[in-house]
Amino acid sequence: MHRTLDRYGAGAGGTRNIAGNSALHLSLEKELASLHRKPGALVFSSCYVANDATLSTLGAKLPGLVYFSDASNHASMIQGIRHSGAKKVIFKHNDLEDLESKLKMWPRETPKVIAFESVYSMCGSIGPIKEICDLAEKYGALTFLDEVHAVGLYGPRGAGVAEHLDFNAHLEAGQNSKAIKGSVMDRVDIITGTLGKAYGTVGGYVAGSKNFIDMIRSYAPGFIFTTSLPPATVAGARASVIYQKKHMGDRALKQINVRKVKEKLAAIDIPVVPGPSHIIPVLVGNAGLAKAASDKLLVEHGIYVQAINYPTVAVGEERLRVTVTPRHTSEQIDGLVKALDNVFTELGINRVGDWTKLGGRANVGVPEASTVKPIWTDAQINIAGNQETLRDGQEAVIDTAAVRAVHKEFEVLLGPAEMNEMDREADAVVLAGAMELAADAMPRNVPHTYIPFDRAEATLAAPVAVAA
Amino acid sequence: MHRTLDRYGAGAGGTRNIAGNSALHLSLEKELASLHRKPGALVFSSCYVANDATLSTLGAKLPGLVYFSDASNHASMIQGIRHSGAKKVIFKHNDLEDLESKLKMWPRETPKVIAFESVYSMCGSIGPIKEICDLAEKYGALTFLDEVHAVGLYGPRGAGVAEHLDFNAHLEAGQNSKAIKGSVMDRVDIITGTLGKAYGTVGGYVAGSKNFIDMIRSYAPGFIFTTSLPPATVAGARASVIYQKKHMGDRALKQINVRKVKEKLAAIDIPVVPGPSHIIPVLVGNAGLAKAASDKLLVEHGIYVQAINYPTVAVGEERLRVTVTPRHTSEQIDGLVKALDNVFTELGINRVGDWTKLGGRANVGVPEASTVKPIWTDAQINIAGNQETLRDGQEAVIDTAAVRAVHKEFEVLLGPAEMNEMDREADAVVLAGAMELAADAMPRNVPHTYIPFDRAEATLAAPVAVAA
Repeated sequence: MHRTLDRYGAGAGGTRNIAGNSALHLSLEKELASLHRKPGALVFSSCYVANDATLSTLGAKLPGLVYFSDASNHASMIQGIRHSGAKKVIFKHNDLEDLESKLKMWPRETPKVIAFESVYSMCGSIGPIKEICDLAEKYGALTFLDEVHAVGLYGPRGAGVAEHLDFNAHLEAGQNSKAIKGSVMDRVDIITGTLGKAYGTVGGYVAGSKNFIDMIRSYAPGFIFTTSLPPATVAGARASVIYQKKHMGDRALKQINVRKVKEKLAAIDIPVVPGPSHIIPVLVGNAGLAKAASDKLLVEHGIYVQAINYPTVAVGEERLRVTVTPRHTSEQIDGLVKALDNVFTELGINRVGDWTKLGGRANVGVPEASTVKPIWTDAQINIAGNQETLRDGQEAVIDTAAVRAVHKEFEVLLGPAEMNEMDREADAVVLAGAMELAADAMPRNVPHTYIPFDRAEATLAAPVAVAA
Repeated sequence: MHRTLDRYGAGAGGTRNIAGNSALHLSLEKELASLHRKPGALVFSSCYVANDATLSTLGAKLPGLVYFSDASNHASMIQGIRHSGAKKVIFKHNDLEDLESKLKMWPRETPKVIAFESVYSMCGSIGPIKEICDLAEKYGALTFLDEVHAVGLYGPRGAGVAEHLDFNAHLEAGQNSKAIKGSVMDRVDIITGTLGKAYGTVGGYVAGSKNFIDMIRSYAPGFIFTTSLPPATVAGARASVIYQKKHMGDRALKQINVRKVKEKLAAIDIPVVPGPSHIIPVLVGNAGLAKAASDKLLVEHGIYVQAINYPTVAVGEERLRVTVTPRHTSEQIDGLVKALDNVFTELGINRVGDWTKLGGRANVGVPEASTVKPIWTDAQINIAGNQETLRDGQEAVIDTAAVRAVHKEFEVLLGPAEMNEMDREADAVVLAGAMELAADAMPRNVPHTYIPFDRAEATLAAPVAVAA
């Protein structure tokens, strides 16, 4: 990003169609298309805009289109569908039976789009992508999949859950951009993702067929009439995508840390809404208590964990959303668990045992829920090599081969770069900076290390992005 | 931006409400509120999102609201009004009589918003802000003013045309953030602007009353559900705003260069749609010819000037949009004029004389049109000091006092900075880089210097932004 900033300046200077296009923008789109093994991709200011613009344009340009929308879909998808003016049918969250019963009410020739997500950020559930593709084929629908909370974190190349479901096939196929016929990712027609979470910068995108991408490029006002992303942001995002494509260690370690936190919380009976993803929703069950717990964690323990209340979740299912990164240390994880233990006791928040007595809440305290298996298997985690939770003071692993691969990809625009000691130092500074930033917001008398437990996905690829 | 990137990392890491807020974001908003002398401001991913989110939220939250929208309003405003679900009445572009006849058809108690722009980018006209405020008061309407093409370019502090209309009062009031009672800027209720044009980065914002800003912050999904801008982008934007607030030279010099280009084109009878702003629309009057002229300018002369065709302008009023920066040199301006002269001759495009014979088109070849006066007076330009068009090879003036003021504002977050020789070199590299970038897209056999005549506003503050 430093080199791009010096060479290409602070801003893109215009819209993509008027003076704001560049080789950097095009190469990022090529990279993203290749990541999802689709013919094309298009970058937007954010994935909010990508979802809104894509769904509203699609609905406006396909006469008679009916959207089938998961009840837990993100606000950006809800807005896009609303703005399209197309008919909308909402199906119960992740409920295939309900979806099918609604699909079959429409004639086969009615154009249909099923819009859903892979990882739902507020409950940690994962959409049944393969089964939805089956239904889509059976009833003649297109599929629109939001992988915002999954890109960079799932799949052997970080393409998301759709890729993860055919882990070995994608691993064997390697880094080429060819579609794997019959794979889940191939069967999904439209995929959207963000550059602002696991990839650590900002921006969103949509990937799909060439004609579809051309259509969105030509008609979506949210794409046409807006200044394109700054060159340095685009370079940083592309560096992250390339690095995470070639380096599986960060996302495997994240899963290891997630399991560790979940196990430690289960051991002290702190309720986590069960789920197969990296999201750790700690059930509180009351809006006031959730806010109070979040405040106590920040002020007394120096840990920032966001309270999630109505309308984001149902009343009575209020929670703390803990997010764990591969950079969190054993000591930080222990500190979090101890802090949660204290706060739960001090505020008298229900533990699993209490919910069991009450007949369960949000799948907590219900016997069958505990059988939910994580989507990353042990075998998949092991493929990434010997990953171990960091200890305080230990340096994070940086995959120098992957960094070299990133530099190689930028050579044509930025010239050759060396991975030297200065780069390493810069990396360390970036991470330290991110921590300090958040720490600045805290009371000065808090003595312990700040853990950005809610920045989680954001800093994953930051060092590589900055070095680009 | 370099320092911020090292200290705060590649991305913001979340939405404004969840982990993506920072002192940098808040200080930029404070700066923007102060720029417009309003109590509050809110930053968005882009001004497309700012306009869309603000107008749609306002319309959705004010029951019975009627929008009065200028016929030439930008796509983002049209979308926002449409998305709000509120009633919309379109008035003829800049036509006060038409607006009044429409306002008076509604009872005084009906909530009304008049939505319009200051500088219209495709024709270069300027909205009658003061007169619209008069009508708004008379008929009980709020005013919503888009200053996207004016911020950084008009007014003694760069706040836009609304500020420019009370030039001396704002100049005398200095840099404080207090509203000037009865001034045009004070009478406008809601102002939106961009950080992606004159300010050289990316992002948009809205400024207004505290309650209004709180309402948008609380209800606009386009604000709530999106990753916030990267720290370095925010720092760059803030640096630009501060620099341009304290340094009038760039925008004065831009006006000088605009006048020079207009005079030179007039001298060879090349038709420019008359207007009081910095926009130079060269009338071609035919879509095919406009495209051919744009291609010829790029391929044969190495000059990028965008053709603007239907539906952006009416059929028969197709044009080339030439934009001039303060960094363009005398030699580049002469080159542009000569190139246009050649292209007009080779393609047989109508000159002013031809349009006069045809009875005029788009105010070209019509006698009264030539009396349009530029909004920047000679006296105002002179206040900025002795500004002169650069010569090839001459270095642009950098206002070291303003740069020091920028550094001072960042000290609390980034520590002290020195304006040294390295900074100057970095500045030069940035500008050279922007030129090279665009030049890369050109055929290698073009021998002359590239003039990014359509990046215009973008690079104005880039060096200062990068240095932050």
